[in-house]
Amino acid sequence: MRTVDLIRRKRDGAELTRDEIRFLVRGATDSSIPDYQLSAWLMAVLWRGMSSQEIAALTEAMLHSGAVLDLSSLPAPAVDKHSTGGVGDKASLVVAPVVAAAGLYVPMISGRGLGHTGGTLDKLESIPGFNVSLSLEEFRAVLESCHCALIGQTPEIAPADRKLYALRDVTGTVESPALICASIMSKKLAEGAQVLVFDVKTGSGAFMKQEHDARHLAGLLVDTAARMGRTAVALLTDMDQPLGHAVGNALEVREAIDVLLGAGPDDVRALSLELSAWMLHLGGLASSFQAALELAALQISSGRAIEKFREILRDQGADPNVVGDPHLLPRAAHSAEICSPSAGFVSRIACEQIGLASTLLGGGRSKAGDSIDPAVGLTILKKVGHAVQPGDPLLRIHFNDPAGLADARALLERSFAISEISPPPATLVRGIIGPAGAAPSRRQPPDGLNNRGEAKD
Amino acid sequence: MRTVDLIRRKRDGAELTRDEIRFLVRGATDSSIPDYQLSAWLMAVLWRGMSSQEIAALTEAMLHSGAVLDLSSLPAPAVDKHSTGGVGDKASLVVAPVVAAAGLYVPMISGRGLGHTGGTLDKLESIPGFNVSLSLEEFRAVLESCHCALIGQTPEIAPADRKLYALRDVTGTVESPALICASIMSKKLAEGAQVLVFDVKTGSGAFMKQEHDARHLAGLLVDTAARMGRTAVALLTDMDQPLGHAVGNALEVREAIDVLLGAGPDDVRALSLELSAWMLHLGGLASSFQAALELAALQISSGRAIEKFREILRDQGADPNVVGDPHLLPRAAHSAEICSPSAGFVSRIACEQIGLASTLLGGGRSKAGDSIDPAVGLTILKKVGHAVQPGDPLLRIHFNDPAGLADARALLERSFAISEISPPPATLVRGIIGPAGAAPSRRQPPDGLNNRGEAKD
Repeated sequence: MRTVDLIRRKRDGAELTRDEIRFLVRGATDSSIPDYQLSAWLMAVLWRGMSSQEIAALTEAMLHSGAVLDLSSLPAPAVDKHSTGGVGDKASLVVAPVVAAAGLYVPMISGRGLGHTGGTLDKLESIPGFNVSLSLEEFRAVLESCHCALIGQTPEIAPADRKLYALRDVTGTVESPALICASIMSKKLAEGAQVLVFDVKTGSGAFMKQEHDARHLAGLLVDTAARMGRTAVALLTDMDQPLGHAVGNALEVREAIDVLLGAGPDDVRALSLELSAWMLHLGGLASSFQAALELAALQISSGRAIEKFREILRDQGADPNVVGDPHLLPRAAHSAEICSPSAGFVSRIACEQIGLASTLLGGGRSKAGDSIDPAVGLTILKKVGHAVQPGDPLLRIHFNDPAGLADARALLERSFAISEISPPPATLVRGIIGPAGAAPSRRQPPDGLNNRGEAKD
Repeated sequence: MRTVDLIRRKRDGAELTRDEIRFLVRGATDSSIPDYQLSAWLMAVLWRGMSSQEIAALTEAMLHSGAVLDLSSLPAPAVDKHSTGGVGDKASLVVAPVVAAAGLYVPMISGRGLGHTGGTLDKLESIPGFNVSLSLEEFRAVLESCHCALIGQTPEIAPADRKLYALRDVTGTVESPALICASIMSKKLAEGAQVLVFDVKTGSGAFMKQEHDARHLAGLLVDTAARMGRTAVALLTDMDQPLGHAVGNALEVREAIDVLLGAGPDDVRALSLELSAWMLHLGGLASSFQAALELAALQISSGRAIEKFREILRDQGADPNVVGDPHLLPRAAHSAEICSPSAGFVSRIACEQIGLASTLLGGGRSKAGDSIDPAVGLTILKKVGHAVQPGDPLLRIHFNDPAGLADARALLERSFAISEISPPPATLVRGIIGPAGAAPSRRQPPDGLNNRGEAKD
């Protein structure tokens, strides 16, 4: 088999075989194929796409390039959720303790923030002492005792994906839906999850700005999971405005704790419960989605979810008193506000700009490896549809270093649109993509959600 | 300027600026841009194409990556021809002495054969003693004294092209018309030619199988030459069957000598005269194409062309007696014939297979760097349109090593189609593409050519 022939065939739109894809992934892993051939192949894949079979073959080959956890001996299913990334998305911090408290196992390997999007690892690390760098053995031990463990990608997991992702990052080939799908799936399968719930974000603050693109990726994820013998569902959710009010690591942890305590913003609670419910339903703890939604809500109202969160903090080295004492989280020294110039309704929030402003304050990364300030960020005071008067504060800037403030403020002043008429209500869950041939049982939108999502048959 | 941003913009179909292309070429030349980024960019170029401005910018940047000969002080214009490669194409061996004999300068930097196509350098090296490895100083000295010098690419000429071509070869990005055009043009301009005549082959034995593709490349070449201040014309010529009868290095040299002596196959003579005439006309030695055609023919009939060929042989280290004594060229030890199975007319010759069969005999290269046997090859005894009887020899195989014979014979036995009715006559010159806004003056097809070519206005 010659690499150049495989590149040429993909370039010409052909489908590669499982063996050919395995050959390429093996060559990436052991460096027997030079990077310049891999990157040409990656660009050809971005151009021509991949068939479902090719994506499954790539997933399988990358999955088996490293360690694969076998969690089948646990007494309950291991389930995980994955978000494609957005602004203010702290749902994982709520979902993990809710689902673990209900009795399933949540082995969650998360990523860091980059550009305008945040990352679960950075949020966790804003909690003093929280250790996301467990070895695979420690990860498994915490998972078994606590039903939940939250770590970053380890060197043993899917090394081929790490190699290819680094190459994609510098060769303009990140954006391929096929490559995104295989990258996500190979890591999720390596961590041993049997049920997967995907939160595919769409809108101005998402990686996939167009709903069409997000829907396509959601379909690929669910289809690939089915081909790999996993149960999965994907929710298409709104990222045209930040989720909740808090943007910034410690601020988001605080907001997630509020939700776990039964308070917090409606959208964060609703999305977290919906994601949790899908995990509980597909994980076998509830026979219907509606029952699963009630079970999830019960974890919060009973206090079991926040108790599980304390347990996670304890098991991963952090102080559980963070829950009751907000002052144990880092706080920015200064704050400033952006106010509405006119009366009317917030009709649009430039969501990506909100995320970038948080990065300018030091709360995110322009490039991988940048250090971040966990305390800074933004509080969105008015969301889409809210009525405002001239001078009403739209958002609050939490900052330490005044250097980034001017740039962030310039960006933020242009990021709210005020209109005279009230905009149509935002739809939080825009669609649900279930496994082909197995329509999800839920048909009713949950309370408090203006959900036009439809199950795919 | 960040390379990844340039890759992404080209990937998304944008036009890069002259400075951006210069940045990429400089990075390729001094290795400050890693190969994996260059190859991703090359694949994006193959996908999205390049504008005329981009091709000119790439040509210019690659041209100036190395030495550039200035031949403007010579007392007559320097002119060159370039063929995109075919089977049995020995026209350069006729054209160079004809045009030099008429008084122009022919600085010709040629390539080697690869795959099914032959290369002028290999043909020249089949002449014992012929030295194609002159330094640039020696090249210039021979050119000044003899009006013609024939060498291979030197390390000083367009190193960026050499680097990028090597990368294209192993990353499936050779086939981009934009990259082909810039690669050809950068070398041709570096050698100092002021007038360029392109022989763009099309048909089953050409690199561009489809006439549409060949016409596109021809247009790019002529347009780029004009943008770089050169006069150029491109002929679209038939490669649905080998040119002439001889395929194989020494065999082709013999056939070229026959043409220079006033004999040889009609198609080789006709094409060589037409190419020579364009060089003479655009080089200012004849006021019309028709007059130039007569001037070219006169070089042969007067004996000046073969005398010039002897002079070239002498100046580049070979024995000029090769002209009069065929036994001084290498000859294969054995021969075999392929005969017609039926009566009728040769309706089609699988031209690429003919070239591959010659390679299997040892006359060509499967990969760059393979050594070749200059003596072996094929003689096409019946060409398209010829009437045949059962048992008539269609071609003769000249071989030394019987190992390759069986494979070559298997390929060759399937490469002639015999039909009951006579096929339509082959058109040798299918089109002429002149510089935009400057239609070539020739409107009449030359004698002996069934030419449907049209000048482009």
